[in-house]
Amino acid sequence: MGWGDLGVYGEPSRETPNLDRMAAEGMLFPNFYSANPLCSPSRAALLTGRLPIRNGFYTTNAHARNAYTPQEIVGGIPDSEQLLPELLKKAGYVSKIVGKWHLGHRPQFHPLKHGFDEWFGSPNCHFGPYDNKARPNIPVYRDWEMVGRYYEEFPINLKTGEANLTQIYLQEALDFIKRQARHHPFFLYWAVDATHAPVYASKPFLGTSQRGRYGDAVREIDDSIGKMLELLQDLHVADNTFVFFTSDNGAALISAPEQGGSNGPFLCGKQTTFEGGMREPALAWWPGHVAAGQVSHQLGSIMDLFTTSLALAGLTPPSDRAIDGLNLLPTLLQGRLMDRPIFYYRGDTLMAATLGQHKAHFWTWTNSWENFRQGIDFCPGQNVSGVTTHNLEDHTKLPLIFHLGRDPGERFPLSFASTEYQEALSRITSVVQQHQEALVPGQPQLNVCNWAVMNWAPPGCEKIGKCLTPPESIPKKCLWSH
Amino acid sequence: MGWGDLGVYGEPSRETPNLDRMAAEGMLFPNFYSANPLCSPSRAALLTGRLPIRNGFYTTNAHARNAYTPQEIVGGIPDSEQLLPELLKKAGYVSKIVGKWHLGHRPQFHPLKHGFDEWFGSPNCHFGPYDNKARPNIPVYRDWEMVGRYYEEFPINLKTGEANLTQIYLQEALDFIKRQARHHPFFLYWAVDATHAPVYASKPFLGTSQRGRYGDAVREIDDSIGKMLELLQDLHVADNTFVFFTSDNGAALISAPEQGGSNGPFLCGKQTTFEGGMREPALAWWPGHVAAGQVSHQLGSIMDLFTTSLALAGLTPPSDRAIDGLNLLPTLLQGRLMDRPIFYYRGDTLMAATLGQHKAHFWTWTNSWENFRQGIDFCPGQNVSGVTTHNLEDHTKLPLIFHLGRDPGERFPLSFASTEYQEALSRITSVVQQHQEALVPGQPQLNVCNWAVMNWAPPGCEKIGKCLTPPESIPKKCLWSH
Repeated sequence: MGWGDLGVYGEPSRETPNLDRMAAEGMLFPNFYSANPLCSPSRAALLTGRLPIRNGFYTTNAHARNAYTPQEIVGGIPDSEQLLPELLKKAGYVSKIVGKWHLGHRPQFHPLKHGFDEWFGSPNCHFGPYDNKARPNIPVYRDWEMVGRYYEEFPINLKTGEANLTQIYLQEALDFIKRQARHHPFFLYWAVDATHAPVYASKPFLGTSQRGRYGDAVREIDDSIGKMLELLQDLHVADNTFVFFTSDNGAALISAPEQGGSNGPFLCGKQTTFEGGMREPALAWWPGHVAAGQVSHQLGSIMDLFTTSLALAGLTPPSDRAIDGLNLLPTLLQGRLMDRPIFYYRGDTLMAATLGQHKAHFWTWTNSWENFRQGIDFCPGQNVSGVTTHNLEDHTKLPLIFHLGRDPGERFPLSFASTEYQEALSRITSVVQQHQEALVPGQPQLNVCNWAVMNWAPPGCEKIGKCLTPPESIPKKCLWSH
Repeated sequence: MGWGDLGVYGEPSRETPNLDRMAAEGMLFPNFYSANPLCSPSRAALLTGRLPIRNGFYTTNAHARNAYTPQEIVGGIPDSEQLLPELLKKAGYVSKIVGKWHLGHRPQFHPLKHGFDEWFGSPNCHFGPYDNKARPNIPVYRDWEMVGRYYEEFPINLKTGEANLTQIYLQEALDFIKRQARHHPFFLYWAVDATHAPVYASKPFLGTSQRGRYGDAVREIDDSIGKMLELLQDLHVADNTFVFFTSDNGAALISAPEQGGSNGPFLCGKQTTFEGGMREPALAWWPGHVAAGQVSHQLGSIMDLFTTSLALAGLTPPSDRAIDGLNLLPTLLQGRLMDRPIFYYRGDTLMAATLGQHKAHFWTWTNSWENFRQGIDFCPGQNVSGVTTHNLEDHTKLPLIFHLGRDPGERFPLSFASTEYQEALSRITSVVQQHQEALVPGQPQLNVCNWAVMNWAPPGCEKIGKCLTPPESIPKKCLWSH
């Protein structure tokens, strides 16, 4: 989902009344970032509080390539990483993930092996070719075992876009909240995928948006969040429950307009390290604690949810490793602003960094000329000369710097000769050097692929007659074209 | 000012708390349009309820050229036009204009000759060269006579951007409200120009915005509006006063980033008939009548303010001429939606039309290659192939059609072969034909220029020693390059 997809962030159709109300009753962050312009690495960062370059969710196969966890990926979340639900257990929390896991689908990466107590959802993205031949349809797990597959037991009509999955995921969330709210502290990670192509919505929402099918999906998610907040209030636990809404990457403009969202006034989208790829909608809601109607200009990160959640549970993050997430409670409760950089990585490469209002690009790239000429466009309708480049341009010697307050769309690089440029560069350089000197990259998890490891025969498949026969095991280097 | 300049419309710095509150307490229109992508014609349309092509605020000098009222313009608002304050007099209203008039500056066009009872402000834009040689600095009038000039008695520091003008204009507004509120019904037209290049703000606001000097100006306007609304409440007339905020054209991206604003997710800016040129922020506030927190998807126009204001005063618009403005009261009070087209003119040419969610472009143009190569860019960072053209492209035979709900940024023209295209085209064509068959263009007012008519010696200049000597009178055809 993109920064610009919510009414409260300026989407002209204004079809997210529940999220808009959530913002009005809580704190809105206009300067909040995912940890990566792509799904898996960003989610790994959310649950570990660490940049993908540290937790292993990157590739060294090629310079500055986005990598993730398709079904043929061999890697996943390393055992050495400590995930949020694992740590929350120490404070008696019960944790559930509903929806897309995306941190590896082989047995050792199962969410219940990494701290979650319950899971209802799927391990990967749900794209095709939907024939169970070239690749299996992704499984849906209930806890340890699969209970069906997308497009089969959990149908999505590719033609109409009709699917009940968001309703099922909503029900799973509501059931979990009802079961836990009065007995244990709980952590619910509601990770729906309806806005991921192929986009879907249930019948009552299909065709109801002014924005096409993508808007239908957004409306259904918005409605679901409204129902969850309502339940928290009905159960009288709202003042004891911290709720945060955000997304793992910017809207995928390659799928626009019918299946792609809006990044508002920002440049480009998913896959890129321009603002459109990583700046996210972000809303915090905690009645009685987070005062209503606030806007915080704190530079925030999805990784902060790790540290902040631990703080809420009275825990501290592991001290034996670098943690990139901040504890946002001083911001949420006292409106404090903390100085911190935002790092924009693409795979193994630090593409850009923001400090205060200034963003420096060390490398610029959208996608290759080859892809672009095939019609794959991460920045449709946008073209900033020397910035939205189709060659991977090296600016490390003389970074491009933008002032994001005056120029949120990254259209007007500061003059290299200006005092503002020199001062901003010096401040950013110092922070980046510090970061890079201390950086110990994790073992890259996204280098090796193997068609045999796909979800052919997940645990439980035999019980429901859903096992498929894997092909011969041939490990190979994954190819990442973006 | 642009659609994207208000926090409530998604400006990331969110520096308009008063306008955002005005929206929360009233009705927000995401689909509201100026009558022209340029100042004078749009303001003439506001006060007459009629398209510029009808009221004469256009040129026939060249096809599809934007024209306005610089100091050398000979024309202005024709006596045959009936202006809102003229009509409101019949219901006992006292009217004041504070700020930029822009409907002609020669004696016959004076606002007090067209229904206003009071004026404090200037007749034109305040740009240079500021030396009183090539052109005079624009005068500031109090009612019938000038009381000084911009950059002289009303200084603007071009280097720092410091000027007290918005504060003076605020004071004029507050004084008028205080004087009138308890005695007569009143109409205040608060037409400030601080966000027009060269942008200015007063000392307490300078340097306070995250958005540079333009943001400082926006903050001061926002603050002023907060003070006006507060006064209405203090005087206990808020429930008897209809307040509307909008702008005359989209943000001027040619002046970005330091002096240009934001058109949010929309294409291009001022001067163009893309959404960025004409879609405007629009807020209605009338406590006790317009319910709080509403968003209306009514296609609205600045011309509707004419008709709506008359309706509020119990008057009807003149019946002897075509009126383009709608009475929005059914929308404001009962949430009704009315079908109506939006016409996008550039000078004498109907460039585009919107009906429902579909917008058809009959002509596309940004600016000439010649201008563009000189660095004048109405769409910086944006480039939609075949749409943001630098030749004036004729699409009248096969218009480009966009769905503004799915594609507010006008990036993805519908396929000519689609049923959606065919249906939309047929509906739009029928409305456009109807419009064009009935259209009686007014006498074009913006054809003739003459340096002798500039504000060399406005009435009152002799009293304050501010008369300048006009050059020889040489009427000539105005040149409009955009």
